[in-house]
Amino acid sequence: MNKLEKVTTGLGEECGVFGAYDMDGGDVAPSVYYGLFALQHRGQESCGIAVTDTYGERKVHFKKGLGLVNEVFDEESLQTLKGNLGVGHVRYSTAGGSKVENAMPLVINYVKGTLAIAHNGNLTNAIELRRELEYTGAIFQTTIDSEVIAYHIARERLNVSMAEEAVKRAMGKIKGAYALVVSSPRKMIGARDPFGLKPLCIGKEGNTYFLASESCAIAAVGAEFVRDVEPGEIVTITKDGIHSDLSMAIAPQNQARCIFEYIYFARTDSTIDKVNVYHSRIIAGKALAQSYPVDADLVVGVPDSGLVAAKGYSEQSGIPYGMAFHKNSYVGRTFIKPKQSQRESSVKIKLNVIEEVVRDKRIVMVDDSIVRGTTCANIIKMLKRAGAKEVHVRISSPPFLYPCYFGTDVPSNEQLIAHSHTTEEIRELIGADSLGYMKIDKLKNMVGSLGYCDACFTGNYPMEVPGRDISHAFE
Amino acid sequence: MNKLEKVTTGLGEECGVFGAYDMDGGDVAPSVYYGLFALQHRGQESCGIAVTDTYGERKVHFKKGLGLVNEVFDEESLQTLKGNLGVGHVRYSTAGGSKVENAMPLVINYVKGTLAIAHNGNLTNAIELRRELEYTGAIFQTTIDSEVIAYHIARERLNVSMAEEAVKRAMGKIKGAYALVVSSPRKMIGARDPFGLKPLCIGKEGNTYFLASESCAIAAVGAEFVRDVEPGEIVTITKDGIHSDLSMAIAPQNQARCIFEYIYFARTDSTIDKVNVYHSRIIAGKALAQSYPVDADLVVGVPDSGLVAAKGYSEQSGIPYGMAFHKNSYVGRTFIKPKQSQRESSVKIKLNVIEEVVRDKRIVMVDDSIVRGTTCANIIKMLKRAGAKEVHVRISSPPFLYPCYFGTDVPSNEQLIAHSHTTEEIRELIGADSLGYMKIDKLKNMVGSLGYCDACFTGNYPMEVPGRDISHAFE
Amino acid sequence: MNKLEKVTTGLGEECGVFGAYDMDGGDVAPSVYYGLFALQHRGQESCGIAVTDTYGERKVHFKKGLGLVNEVFDEESLQTLKGNLGVGHVRYSTAGGSKVENAMPLVINYVKGTLAIAHNGNLTNAIELRRELEYTGAIFQTTIDSEVIAYHIARERLNVSMAEEAVKRAMGKIKGAYALVVSSPRKMIGARDPFGLKPLCIGKEGNTYFLASESCAIAAVGAEFVRDVEPGEIVTITKDGIHSDLSMAIAPQNQARCIFEYIYFARTDSTIDKVNVYHSRIIAGKALAQSYPVDADLVVGVPDSGLVAAKGYSEQSGIPYGMAFHKNSYVGRTFIKPKQSQRESSVKIKLNVIEEVVRDKRIVMVDDSIVRGTTCANIIKMLKRAGAKEVHVRISSPPFLYPCYFGTDVPSNEQLIAHSHTTEEIRELIGADSLGYMKIDKLKNMVGSLGYCDACFTGNYPMEVPGRDISHAFE
Amino acid sequence: MNKLEKVTTGLGEECGVFGAYDMDGGDVAPSVYYGLFALQHRGQESCGIAVTDTYGERKVHFKKGLGLVNEVFDEESLQTLKGNLGVGHVRYSTAGGSKVENAMPLVINYVKGTLAIAHNGNLTNAIELRRELEYTGAIFQTTIDSEVIAYHIARERLNVSMAEEAVKRAMGKIKGAYALVVSSPRKMIGARDPFGLKPLCIGKEGNTYFLASESCAIAAVGAEFVRDVEPGEIVTITKDGIHSDLSMAIAPQNQARCIFEYIYFARTDSTIDKVNVYHSRIIAGKALAQSYPVDADLVVGVPDSGLVAAKGYSEQSGIPYGMAFHKNSYVGRTFIKPKQSQRESSVKIKLNVIEEVVRDKRIVMVDDSIVRGTTCANIIKMLKRAGAKEVHVRISSPPFLYPCYFGTDVPSNEQLIAHSHTTEEIRELIGADSLGYMKIDKLKNMVGSLGYCDACFTGNYPMEVPGRDISHAFE
Repeated sequence: MNKLEKVTTGLGEECGVFGAYDMDGGDVAPSVYYGLFALQHRGQESCGIAVTDTYGERKVHFKKGLGLVNEVFDEESLQTLKGNLGVGHVRYSTAGGSKVENAMPLVINYVKGTLAIAHNGNLTNAIELRRELEYTGAIFQTTIDSEVIAYHIARERLNVSMAEEAVKRAMGKIKGAYALVVSSPRKMIGARDPFGLKPLCIGKEGNTYFLASESCAIAAVGAEFVRDVEPGEIVTITKDGIHSDLSMAIAPQNQARCIFEYIYFARTDSTIDKVNVYHSRIIAGKALAQSYPVDADLVVGVPDSGLVAAKGYSEQSGIPYGMAFHKNSYVGRTFIKPKQSQRESSVKIKLNVIEEVVRDKRIVMVDDSIVRGTTCANIIKMLKRAGAKEVHVRISSPPFLYPCYFGTDVPSNEQLIAHSHTTEEIRELIGADSLGYMKIDKLKNMVGSLGYCDACFTGNYPMEVPGRDISHAFE
Repeated sequence: MNKLEKVTTGLGEECGVFGAYDMDGGDVAPSVYYGLFALQHRGQESCGIAVTDTYGERKVHFKKGLGLVNEVFDEESLQTLKGNLGVGHVRYSTAGGSKVENAMPLVINYVKGTLAIAHNGNLTNAIELRRELEYTGAIFQTTIDSEVIAYHIARERLNVSMAEEAVKRAMGKIKGAYALVVSSPRKMIGARDPFGLKPLCIGKEGNTYFLASESCAIAAVGAEFVRDVEPGEIVTITKDGIHSDLSMAIAPQNQARCIFEYIYFARTDSTIDKVNVYHSRIIAGKALAQSYPVDADLVVGVPDSGLVAAKGYSEQSGIPYGMAFHKNSYVGRTFIKPKQSQRESSVKIKLNVIEEVVRDKRIVMVDDSIVRGTTCANIIKMLKRAGAKEVHVRISSPPFLYPCYFGTDVPSNEQLIAHSHTTEEIRELIGADSLGYMKIDKLKNMVGSLGYCDACFTGNYPMEVPGRDISHAFE
Repeated sequence: MNKLEKVTTGLGEECGVFGAYDMDGGDVAPSVYYGLFALQHRGQESCGIAVTDTYGERKVHFKKGLGLVNEVFDEESLQTLKGNLGVGHVRYSTAGGSKVENAMPLVINYVKGTLAIAHNGNLTNAIELRRELEYTGAIFQTTIDSEVIAYHIARERLNVSMAEEAVKRAMGKIKGAYALVVSSPRKMIGARDPFGLKPLCIGKEGNTYFLASESCAIAAVGAEFVRDVEPGEIVTITKDGIHSDLSMAIAPQNQARCIFEYIYFARTDSTIDKVNVYHSRIIAGKALAQSYPVDADLVVGVPDSGLVAAKGYSEQSGIPYGMAFHKNSYVGRTFIKPKQSQRESSVKIKLNVIEEVVRDKRIVMVDDSIVRGTTCANIIKMLKRAGAKEVHVRISSPPFLYPCYFGTDVPSNEQLIAHSHTTEEIRELIGADSLGYMKIDKLKNMVGSLGYCDACFTGNYPMEVPGRDISHAFE
Repeated sequence: MNKLEKVTTGLGEECGVFGAYDMDGGDVAPSVYYGLFALQHRGQESCGIAVTDTYGERKVHFKKGLGLVNEVFDEESLQTLKGNLGVGHVRYSTAGGSKVENAMPLVINYVKGTLAIAHNGNLTNAIELRRELEYTGAIFQTTIDSEVIAYHIARERLNVSMAEEAVKRAMGKIKGAYALVVSSPRKMIGARDPFGLKPLCIGKEGNTYFLASESCAIAAVGAEFVRDVEPGEIVTITKDGIHSDLSMAIAPQNQARCIFEYIYFARTDSTIDKVNVYHSRIIAGKALAQSYPVDADLVVGVPDSGLVAAKGYSEQSGIPYGMAFHKNSYVGRTFIKPKQSQRESSVKIKLNVIEEVVRDKRIVMVDDSIVRGTTCANIIKMLKRAGAKEVHVRISSPPFLYPCYFGTDVPSNEQLIAHSHTTEEIRELIGADSLGYMKIDKLKNMVGSLGYCDACFTGNYPMEVPGRDISHAFE
C-alpha cells in the first residue's frame, strides 16, 4: 500500500463536464452556463465554455477563468460565445495548484481542425504517456493530464477518418478514470472509462442533445434524461442522432464506479447508472441504523451532505428526524477565515445550532465522513452547549485509509484522523457519546448490483496504480 | 386605505445592524464582519463597517460598498479598520435605487465629534422632518431617512450633555420603525422604536459587548446572548456596563413587532423577544395543518423559508416529512437570468425536484407566501412532472393586501396575485389541488403574548401612516 | 512666518473644475468627460461628474470614484448620466488622505432642491466656519472644506430668492482661494475668489456654455473661448445668457493670482487672465538667460514642465535648443517604484538621455523647481554619464521658503532643500556646474500687469493666513 | 504585387522582447518589468513575464494578461515571480484579435524540461510549417506563429544535446522576421533572423545579462549596453558568458533591417545596429528640407513621432523650431472616443495647438506618415484656426504602397490615402499649402551603410512572401 504525500484539508472531486449540441443551429452557451451552474458543486476553482458554430466558420470561441461560473461569465461574455455546439467544464480547487492556464475545456487546433475537450478524472499512466509524447516532439502548455488525452486523439486522428475512432484509439492507450466530452467540428463525442469510475449521461430537449456529469444538470436546462453513457462506451452525437460504440466496454462485474459519488460528491437529485443518489443515501442511513442502533430522541444531519443519510437513519430507527442546524449559505469560497486567536470559529460562522430543537435531547448526528475530526468536534461541542444531552455520531462512509489515484482529493495519511487512531480514540477526541462508521460490506447496498470502487477504504484498486501521488507531477 | 405604487418582484427587508465594543481595546472589525455575515439574509445590496479607537485618536475609519459582505471586504480592508468600537450594516437591494452613497453606516462629524449610525427600518414622517431641517439650513447628501435621524441627534446634542440623551430627544421627533446602533466617540448606543417593529438584541463575550438585529449574529461571533433591547428602550454601553432608559417605552399591549420577521425574514436559529423563530414557524405549520387538513402521503417545504413550517405541518398531521427539493446554493445575486424565450426557467436552475421522493405521492407543499404566483406555479408543475399525484399548497402567511410603511418591501397591488384574485382563482392559476393561507386569527399563536403588527394583511396600522409610498421620496 | 508640517514629496495642485450647460437639452456628460481629460494634470486622485436634466425631473445623477478620468468612467457610466447641465471635478492626490468620500462634485439636497458644487482651492477660515456651522446643528460627511461652502450657500438660500445671491452671501463669509462651478437646478454659476488665486474661464459652442479651470479644456470640447471669469466675479448662466455680478471684486492691484499656475500647474496651451502660459514660460526662460548667462552648447528642458522655459533661455541666449530626454509616457500613477536596493532608479525608468544629443556638449538644463534635489541630481548624473561636459542648471522659479495655504501642496521645510542650504550648497549637492534660480523681482515679467501671489517664495500673503497647515484639519 | 486585406486604422509593430539572467541568483522579475515598461511603445495589447530559478527547482512561473505592463502586474504578482532567469514580452493590439491565450512568453514543457519563448516578428512560412507539424501529430493552443517556433525547437532538441543547437536547426526551417529571447532551464538564448528585420541587443550590469528589443530598455534597468545581436546570430548566455554562433548569418549587403524602426517604431533614445534613432530622424528631417525647401517662419513636429524630424528640418533649413502642440498624455488606450456626431474630435482631445506659437506664422509641419489623412487634415485645420497663415506638410517616410509580411501592421490599400490619390490630391484633401513625402532614395541616408528593408514603399521584398495576409491565418 502506498502513502499519500500531499497536504489538503478536505475531500475534493476534480471536475464536472457538460456538452450541448443544437441541431437547429441555436446558440448553446446559455444552456452550457446553466448546466455548469448545476455542476458547480463538483469544482469551484475555475470554469470554461468553448463553442463552435457547426454551420458557419467552425471556429472555436472560448472563455475560461478562475472562479465560480457566475464570477467568470457575465451577460456580455455569454453573448460573444456564438455557436450551436458547446463544451463546458468546472474544475475543483486544489490548494496552491490553481492556475488559469489549467482551466478547461482544452481547445486545440490539430490536423483535422479544432477540438474542444472537457475531462473529469485522473489518468494513472499520464507520466509514461507524456514522456512518450515528448520523445516524439510534443510540447505541453498545461500541467493537466487532459492535454495528454488531447494529444493522443490528435495523433490517432492522422490514421483514422473519424474523430470518434481517434477517441477510441486514444482510450486504448490511456489508463485511469475519465469522463470526456469532446466537440470535434461537427460532432459531440462523450466517452467514459471502461471501469465507469466517473459518471456521464445524455439528455435531450427538442433537437438539442446534452452530455453531463450528472443528471441534475440535464434537469437544470429543462431537458429530458435519455440515459447514462455506459462504462467504456463512446457516444457520437451528430445530425443522425446518437451513435454508440461499446467495443471498449468490460464485463459488468469488473466495473468500478466511484462509491464516493453516491456518498458525497453527486447531488441528491441526480441519478447515476440508474441508482438515485438520494435513494442510496437513504439506504446508507438505514444501514447505519441497523449497524449502530441507539436509544435517542432525534436524528439530525450535518448540512448539506449528511441530511439525507440522517433521514434514512430516522426512517429505519423510528427516531424522529429534526433540523438542528442553520447553515449560512453566504459563506463561500472567498470568506476570510478567523485567525485561531479570534473568538469566532469557522464552524460557528457557517453553522449554527437551533437550540429549540436540540435542548435536552439525545441526538444521533449523521455526517458523510470524518477527515481531521476538528470540524466534527466543534459541531458536537455546539450541540452540547445548546443543551443536547447525548450526541451519537454516525458516519455514512467507512474510514479513509488508502489514497485515490482516480481524481478524488483525499488528504494525506498524517491528516486523516482514522489513519492513526482507533474508532474509540476518535470518539473520545471528538467528544461523541458513541461513534459508528459505515461498515465496508454494507456499501454494496447503496448501489444495488452495480460494480463499484471502494479502494480508498479497502486498498482494492480496480487496476494497477502508480504507487505515489502523481496528480501534480507536471507542475 | 392607500395603494402602493412601486414595482418590485419579491419581499424585502431593509437592513441588518450590528455593533461591537471591546472594552479591552481589541480591534472589533473582524467580529463586525462575521456578525454581518450572519445578517446577510437581511440585505444584499450594500454593506459597511465603521470603527473608532476609543483609546486613541477617536477618528472614525470606515469602508462601505455595493455587494455582499465578502465582496466588499477583504483581509486588507479589515486590517485597516483599526478600532475597538464598531458599527456595521447590511442593506437590502431595492430595484434601481441602489447607490453606494446610500450605504451605511452613516458617518458624520458634528459639534461633539464623530458619530456612526446604522439603522434598520423606515420612518413615516421622514418627509416632514427633512423639510423642517432644510428650512433651518440642513443639506442632505443621501436619499436615506437615516440622515434625518443623524441630523436630529446632532441638533439635540447641542442642548444636552450626553449622546444617549440626544438619541432620546431625536426619538421624540421621529416616527416609524427603527432599530439603531450608534457609536458616539466612547459609547455604543442601541435603540428600538416604541412599537418594537424592528428587532435588536445584546450579546457579550469577555469584555466585548455586541448589538445585533438578530441573535444568530451574536452566536456567530461566539458570544453569549444577554437579552433583547425592549421596544422603546435606549441602551448605552460604556466601560460602566449597560445603562437602560425605558422612558420612551409604551404599554406592551400597544407594541407591534413585525410578524413577518417570524414568518420569513429572521433566521430560524434566531430568537426575537424570547420567541424562537424556528418554534414560531413550527406553530405556523401546525396551525395550517389544523385549518386545512388533507389526506396526503408527504409534507414538503419549499427551501429555505418553507422548510420549518412544513415540519410543523408534518408533526401536527402525522403525515411524513420529506425533502423534495435540491436547492442550488451557487445561484446568487449576480446570476444571469434566462430570457423567457429560453427553455430553462429560473426556478429550475435554483430548485430541482428529487423524483425518488415525490413519485406517486400526494404532496402537501408548504411555502411562506405567494407574491405573483408564477414561481409557485412552476414548482407545482415540476412536482407533477416528477410524478406527484396531488399537490396541496399551504401558505404560512395570510394574503398580502396592504402596503407596509415600516421597511418591508412588498410589491404593489397590481403585482400581488392576492389583490385581484380569490383564493380559489389563485389555486386554479397555480395548478394546485388545494390551497390554504394562514388564517389571520392564528398569527397570534406564533408569537405567544407579544404585541405584533399584521397591517400588511389587515390594514390595521399601529400608527398613522403617510398614505403613499415614501420609501423613495428623496431620490 | 509659519512652518509647514506635512510630509509630501512633490508639488501639487488641488483640483480642476468644469461645467457644461446645453440650452437645447442635449446630454453634456461626454463634454464634461472630455473637459476633465484636459484638466487631468490638475488632479489624479479622484474625479466625478454630476448632471441634471433641466427640462425633466431635475434630479441629479452622479458618479465619483478614485482614479483617473478614464479609470472612473466607461461608456456605460457616461450613458447613464443623462442631463443637459453638468459639473465635473478632478482632485489631486495628497499622500494618505485619498478617500472616495471626498471626491467631488459635492451633490446636496437642500431647501431649494439639488445643487452640485465643484471647488478648486483651499479656504483659510474653514475651521472657524465649520465650527460655527456645527454649533447650529450642521453635520459633515466629508473632510473637504467644500462642504462648508455648500452649507453656507444652502443656509443663505433660505433668505434670498436666487441661488447666485446665496453664492454671493456665502462668498462674504468664506475666505481663501476658490474657483467654484455650481449647478443649481436650472442655472450654472461660476465664481472666483476676489484675489483670483485660482483660475476660471468661460467657453461657448452653439447653445452650450462651459466653465473650466483652464482654457485648454474649452478647446478640448471644441468650443470658443469667451472670457475669463474675473477675480471676485460671479457669473450666472441661464437661458438668458451670462449674467455677471462684480460686487465682490477688489481693486486690481490687490488681486493675487497664484504665480505657480504660470510656472508649473497650468498647461502651456492655456491662457489665464489674458496671459498665455507658454508665453509666460518663454519670458521666464529669457529672464533666466539674462540673470545667469553661461557659455554653453545646448539648452535642454526637463520634460515636460521645463521645456518651454528652456526654449525661452535658448531664444534669449542664442544657444541652440535641443531634446536631450525621452520621457516614458506609460509610467503613470500606479507604477511600482523600484526599491532603493535595486539597480534601477525611478528617474531612469521615466526619463532617458539621448546620448547622441548631449555627448561632448556643455549643457544648460532648465527645470521649473527643485524640491528635494534628488531627482535633479539623478538627471545631472545621467547627462554626465552620457558625455555632457558641463551641466548648468537654471530653475524657472525662486526657492520655496514659505507654506501655501491656498491649495498648493508644497512639501514641508525639512524636505525642501532650499530651506536648509544655500544655492552654492545645493549646486554642489546636485552636482551642477552652476545653478541659478529665478530672481523674485523677475516674476512680474511673466504676468505683465497682473496682480499675483508669490507668498511661497516671499512670505507676503495677500490675506491673513492660519499660521499652521489646516488642509487636513477635518480628517 | 500583393494586396493587403485586413482593416486597421494605424500602423503597428507586433512586439517587444526582453530577457534577464542574474548569475548571482537574484530575482529578475522587477528588472523584466522595468524593461517591458521601456518597450511598452512596441505593444499595448498584452504582456507577460516568465521566470525560472536556475539554482532551485527550475520550474517556470509566469503571468500574462491583456493590458499595459502596469495594468497586468502589481507588487504582489511581481513578488510571486521568483527566479533569476526571466523572459518578458509586450504585444501589439491588432483590432479584434486580442486574446489572453495569445499573450507571450509562450511557456512549454517538452522532452528536455521547460522553455519560455518571447518572439517579435512574423514568419512567412508559418502556414506550411504548422500544417507539416499537424501531420506529425502536433496540437496548437494559440493562433500565434511563435508556437510553430516552439515546436520546432522542441523537436530538434530530440536530436541535439544543446538548446542553442535546437534553436539553430529551427532557424533553418522558419522563414521571415524574428527576434527571439528563449530561456532554457539554465541558458538565455537570443536570436535574430538572418535579414535582421527585427532588432535585438545585449546589456550587462554586474553579473546580470540582458537581452532587449531596443537599447532604451537596457538603459531603463541601469545596465550598460554591450552590443547588438547580429542579424542571423544566436547568442547563448550562461555562467560562462556570451557564446556567439554566426553560422546562420548572411552577407551584410543582403541584410534587410526594417526601416520603419528608425522612422517610427523605435524610441528616439535607442540605438539599433550602431545607428542612433534620434540621429537617423534628424537626417530624415534634413533630407526633407533639402528635397522640399519652403519659405516659412517656423518648423513644428506632430508629437511625438514627428518632433525629431522637425528638428532636423529646422537645422537644415535654418527656420526656427517651435513647439506648436500640447499633447495630452492621459489619453490612452481605454479612452472613450467621441461619436462622430459630437462636437469634439478625437484629435482635439489628444492634441491642442498653442496659439501663441503659431499665430500669423507660415508653418512647416513634420509628421512620420499619413495613413488615412483624416488626422492630418484635422491638425492642419486646428493650426489654421489658431492663426497659422500657411501649413506646409513634410512626411518623413515615403507613401505606403505595399503590404508588410514581417510584422508591421499596415492598413489595407482601401484605407491608405496614398493608394488611390496622387500627392497633389492628398495635399488638397488634407488642406495643406504644400506636401512633400520623403524620397525613397534618401532613406539610405538614415541608416548609413546598413542593409534595410523598404518593401512597404517599393515592393522589393528581401525574401519570398506569401502573397496574402497570413497574420491572422490561424484564428
